[in-house]
Amino acid sequence: MPFELDPRLAADTIPVGNLPLTLALLMNDSRFPWIILVPRIDGARDLIDLTYDDQVCLVGEIGTTSRALREHANPDKLNVAALGNMVPQLHVHVIARQTTDAAWPAPVWGVGTATPYTDEEATVQVKALTEKLGISA
Amino acid sequence: MPFELDPRLAADTIPVGNLPLTLALLMNDSRFPWIILVPRIDGARDLIDLTYDDQVCLVGEIGTTSRALREHANPDKLNVAALGNMVPQLHVHVIARQTTDAAWPAPVWGVGTATPYTDEEATVQVKALTEKLGISA
Repeated sequence: MPFELDPRLAADTIPVGNLPLTLALLMNDSRFPWIILVPRIDGARDLIDLTYDDQVCLVGEIGTTSRALREHANPDKLNVAALGNMVPQLHVHVIARQTTDAAWPAPVWGVGTATPYTDEEATVQVKALTEKLGISA
Repeated sequence: MPFELDPRLAADTIPVGNLPLTLALLMNDSRFPWIILVPRIDGARDLIDLTYDDQVCLVGEIGTTSRALREHANPDKLNVAALGNMVPQLHVHVIARQTTDAAWPAPVWGVGTATPYTDEEATVQVKALTEKLGISA
């Protein structure tokens, strides 16, 4: 079966582009610089559902995304997580955290209400992130 | 500098044993089968602070731990996360989640109060987990 993005992930995010294994999405919440990586592998729920080679590829793309967010947002800490309790499709959160952000030091999930980007802000963010991720437009 | 376990991680957990890269710890909270992997690399805070080879090794040990917890607890979902907002020393949570557990579908962090294992329970858990992780006593 072809890969299809979970509709809840699609609704909550703005597409950034494709890395070799994953689709990179920007969480539409301007409180946190927050990228979600979705391996384009149909039916995967847990990391160990991927082949070993794809797991190694994924750790590389988590690294690429982490470095991009470090450059982009100069965070105090990165949070990396594959939870999937609400949306079963395997996806990895990579989040740039600041000690001054709305959730610190708690995890970001379920804290307050998302502050969507304006169209203009979203365009600027996506442009900056595609460049830093080495994704061609 | 030699590796030294963060005292807060030490206080909250029960040692399971060493994998090639990481020290495996059992979170002392019987509500959730929950292992923490701590790479024995002094000064690491984020995943990308590890060398690429160590990142690949870590993803293998996350896989080993995930499979051990699947066998051990037959979870509905695995949660894998490197947060480190409270304890800066790099550590990876691998948690077996049930749809009936005390936090579902929320993440486990900050939910209620830990229920420590009795000494007897801890001994049983550690014995089972060392076997499933292939750690020799």
